[in-house]
Amino acid sequence: MDVMNIESKPEKMEVSTGPLPASRKVYVSGTEFPDIKVPMREIDLHPSANEKPVRVYDTSGPYTDPQAKIDMYKGLERKRTAWIKARGDVEEYEGREIKAEDNGNASGKYLAEEFPVKHRPLRAKAGQNVTQMEYARRGIITPEMEFIAIRENMSRAELGEDYKRDEYAEDFGANIPDEITPEFVRQEVAEGRAIIPANINHPEAEPMIIGRNFLVKINANIGNSAVASSVGEEVEKMVWATRWGADNVMDLSTGRNIHNTREWIIRNSAVPIGTVPIYQALEKVNGVAEDLTWEVFRDTLIEQAEQGVDYFTIHAGVLLRYVPMTAKRVTGIVSRGGSIMAKWCLFHHKESFLYTHFEEICEIMKAYDVSFSLGDGLRPGSIADANDEAQFGELETLGELTKIAWKHNVQVMIEGPGHVSMNKIKINMDKQLKECHEAPFYTLGPLTTDIAPGYDHITSGIGAAMIGWFGCAMLCYVTPKEHLGLPDREDVKVGVITYKIAAHAADLAKGHPGAQLRDDALSRARFDFRWEDQFNLALDPEKAREFHDQTMPKEAHKVAHFCSMCGPKFCSMKISQEVRQFADNGMAEMAEKFKETGAELYQTVDANKKANDSL
Amino acid sequence: MDVMNIESKPEKMEVSTGPLPASRKVYVSGTEFPDIKVPMREIDLHPSANEKPVRVYDTSGPYTDPQAKIDMYKGLERKRTAWIKARGDVEEYEGREIKAEDNGNASGKYLAEEFPVKHRPLRAKAGQNVTQMEYARRGIITPEMEFIAIRENMSRAELGEDYKRDEYAEDFGANIPDEITPEFVRQEVAEGRAIIPANINHPEAEPMIIGRNFLVKINANIGNSAVASSVGEEVEKMVWATRWGADNVMDLSTGRNIHNTREWIIRNSAVPIGTVPIYQALEKVNGVAEDLTWEVFRDTLIEQAEQGVDYFTIHAGVLLRYVPMTAKRVTGIVSRGGSIMAKWCLFHHKESFLYTHFEEICEIMKAYDVSFSLGDGLRPGSIADANDEAQFGELETLGELTKIAWKHNVQVMIEGPGHVSMNKIKINMDKQLKECHEAPFYTLGPLTTDIAPGYDHITSGIGAAMIGWFGCAMLCYVTPKEHLGLPDREDVKVGVITYKIAAHAADLAKGHPGAQLRDDALSRARFDFRWEDQFNLALDPEKAREFHDQTMPKEAHKVAHFCSMCGPKFCSMKISQEVRQFADNGMAEMAEKFKETGAELYQTVDANKKANDSL
Repeated sequence: MDVMNIESKPEKMEVSTGPLPASRKVYVSGTEFPDIKVPMREIDLHPSANEKPVRVYDTSGPYTDPQAKIDMYKGLERKRTAWIKARGDVEEYEGREIKAEDNGNASGKYLAEEFPVKHRPLRAKAGQNVTQMEYARRGIITPEMEFIAIRENMSRAELGEDYKRDEYAEDFGANIPDEITPEFVRQEVAEGRAIIPANINHPEAEPMIIGRNFLVKINANIGNSAVASSVGEEVEKMVWATRWGADNVMDLSTGRNIHNTREWIIRNSAVPIGTVPIYQALEKVNGVAEDLTWEVFRDTLIEQAEQGVDYFTIHAGVLLRYVPMTAKRVTGIVSRGGSIMAKWCLFHHKESFLYTHFEEICEIMKAYDVSFSLGDGLRPGSIADANDEAQFGELETLGELTKIAWKHNVQVMIEGPGHVSMNKIKINMDKQLKECHEAPFYTLGPLTTDIAPGYDHITSGIGAAMIGWFGCAMLCYVTPKEHLGLPDREDVKVGVITYKIAAHAADLAKGHPGAQLRDDALSRARFDFRWEDQFNLALDPEKAREFHDQTMPKEAHKVAHFCSMCGPKFCSMKISQEVRQFADNGMAEMAEKFKETGAELYQTVDANKKANDSL
Repeated sequence: MDVMNIESKPEKMEVSTGPLPASRKVYVSGTEFPDIKVPMREIDLHPSANEKPVRVYDTSGPYTDPQAKIDMYKGLERKRTAWIKARGDVEEYEGREIKAEDNGNASGKYLAEEFPVKHRPLRAKAGQNVTQMEYARRGIITPEMEFIAIRENMSRAELGEDYKRDEYAEDFGANIPDEITPEFVRQEVAEGRAIIPANINHPEAEPMIIGRNFLVKINANIGNSAVASSVGEEVEKMVWATRWGADNVMDLSTGRNIHNTREWIIRNSAVPIGTVPIYQALEKVNGVAEDLTWEVFRDTLIEQAEQGVDYFTIHAGVLLRYVPMTAKRVTGIVSRGGSIMAKWCLFHHKESFLYTHFEEICEIMKAYDVSFSLGDGLRPGSIADANDEAQFGELETLGELTKIAWKHNVQVMIEGPGHVSMNKIKINMDKQLKECHEAPFYTLGPLTTDIAPGYDHITSGIGAAMIGWFGCAMLCYVTPKEHLGLPDREDVKVGVITYKIAAHAADLAKGHPGAQLRDDALSRARFDFRWEDQFNLALDPEKAREFHDQTMPKEAHKVAHFCSMCGPKFCSMKISQEVRQFADNGMAEMAEKFKETGAELYQTVDANKKANDSL
């Protein structure tokens, strides 16, 4: 991996670039829209495998393409602009002027550098609705939809991949076709069962879809806080998270410089970016929740929609009557947005402006195609509080709001918990599907126990895999630092890999037709002792190689037909290969031959003995 | 943590000792057997909590008791010897003479130091059967059984803990009582639904139980290989693994010095030790599987039984007719024991001596109370091979062997996979319960995907939590090094903590009556910003503290009412506490008062501002 280091500017901007090991970027063109180029990663295998390269879903954007010119100060290529303009329903306009409060009134050396390039924002022409749901419901297949269909299929049919459905698969009522067509994408979006987060002001993003009839997706949270980190670090965290597989990134920055930080992130992001606009609105009223107003919030929505935020977490389901239900909880309200709105509701003793102005919010969303991520402000913060009346009351309200958003053809996903013991996870999923009319579910974990701070990527990875299997469409990662501190680069990677595991385990269990191809390729590599292939096919090739090399560092060991766990004599894989030869050649006949040539069985071991002895 | 370093001997023997943070060792006496002392760990909370200390299950042995005298060269106190001798059914005898082949013919500087103290072994007197199952079926409650009852209850009733069953708990037909009585332990052992691995020659071990109506247990594997590690390292791995919560340890050593390494481990182990005797037997025939004989194997069983091994993995279910079924697998046979036996069967074209001499094996087991861990030699090594005819054929045979062992009143658990996607895990559990007549299940993971070498503690932790929930009694850990190398100390810890998470998540989901007490105590600490308590109640207090201190290192921050994730303004816990006050005092009345005193709400934040600014 290379690190691209641009030092010509006041702030050093370093991001990770270069392909992953043995990997090539390939682009697949569209049929209906020949100019679309869907990125995929091809992992080459050792010639001895005599196997095709393995194609995998690729979220990393141009950063892993050695042919791509990356200039963090210009931003990524705005490929989608042409598609958007071709629809003829948008207009460029001056846009809202940036205010000092957008950056928390930071000035001088405390003000983060502005992004150097200015783009005039787009919005829907008067009377138009530019959401993918609008098009879908009008029967229109957009380039975004074909892009997604190609991306989800991973060229299985074209490559003649011998994929099969697991006959014991259980998808709990999902409906994953063998092949995703653009028309299927359209239908799913039209029905509200999937969303395509794709703000018209974020044309740098590569289209992707969130829905339970597609591959399970993951989200990585980044963002500076009042306490730590810089713009450059956050941009690199975004690039880094997508390098390892984050499908979406949420920028949860608080404190100063929110606007400028976000601009750098969006302009350089090939994945959709989500935010929680109430965080910035709160900064604008100096952190006093009760001073929040609809006007400040509305202004913040427009600010962020013009920048290109693809989805907004909006905690419009925190109703006044639910708030007292949290008083007897062990951990009260743990959602930041939820607690802010609860405080506002209590102070003013009325329903929040998010709820009372919900239709106006929809009007804004549809002018830019911002998707709702309806926030679970009352999610449980502990095992003790899971599935209580506050949480489920809010979920029912989110179902009502979903219907309102859909009336406006605005795309919606629903956020979910949180801390939930395993026995209560399916109850959450089933209730969400029912109450929210099959709108995609997007959960944080859930964490299946509270007793392991420092390992909450694991406590939650367990819950995430399960709820992904049960039907959750996107899993918001949790890093090892959860509850303890802000994640650093390594934490982000561990969080992403853990959630790729959860999402993939869910795809396998749901019987996704192509999911097992990579498992099988890696298993064959394992059986054949193709160590390099085993590393390269891993979700984290660097870590796999590093761990192997700790005990068997030499290059000769990369072809060794054993590993450090068992040594050559005990290698079951080796013995197993002999068993296979037996079976291939007829057992009785071979039993005799085996006795004759028995001494030769360990020839390979002897050949490897030198490597072994030199350890 | 202290490191006890004894340098007076040729090999340096360092083990980890000293209590965990804020923890005290307490011992609870028996009622029927007043001399038994059941160890528990009490975690003290901050005085401001006004809460009782939290008692947790303690596997760490005397190493965490500052009062205990530890001498690695003498071994742990042999507390159980008196109980065993009191039963009047054992005899001391000379025992088998140690042979050069027991240590792989190592000599001179290559021979690991012998353990300095020799104990004459015990065995059942002629015609006697000394298994816990024998006693249980005769209606006898042993001291081991009362010890276990006390240990499983964690003094909940005596301490007046306000525990409750989760009304949504799902135990899939398990039968976990509110309180475990010695009689319940006896019944479960008599029925074969639980085992107490307790070789009469391992009187140093603290009794524990494996069964689905008890707390879910975990096993850690250690052991040197031909390629790496020393006796001292392995003994420390055992101590280290139990320090973090391993209920059992398997010594999977191969290569030379197996006998001497094992003696050091057993004499110093407070948890049951398991082995796979075929590994040592294979060393005795120079690694040539087909040269294995019943005589060599039998001699090895006696050697290990006399040393005190508590359970033997025996792959007696690998039948000749199953072996060809593995030929078309993606990864063949991945169990070392399984592949050794498969090769033997093929070579000789007959059923293995493990199967044909099974009743003789039972005779040996019952003379020492060694438990069977019936090995799954044909477990799947990849997602592709899960639940196939070879695996399930063997499982059916293990069910038949279980009946035979039970005829001898020998305790049995059944080993299980392996690599299994989530949708196939419950099928495994249900089939095991049915085919093996509810004998306890003991699984390796299972790993829910193959694509993440370097993270297989996580791919398998997901499967382990689920199968634990479904009824698996003991979960064999997988470390991050699985498939790549031998685990080091840090890997062992990560593996153990991951599996403690899985086991605990399973206990919660099953509705174990006391499991949630620790979660609730930690959640209350979290809500109250009792950082020290949060660390101390964590499964890994060191890691939790280390992560917190990376962003907020100062002692002042340990009382800060916020953390680095959100900073003071966005702290939902803080706001939530205000909401709770509101609710306590009647909302309408408080709304007015709140407005008046609103300015004071952030007083605490201001108080903390100095700490924040100094970051």
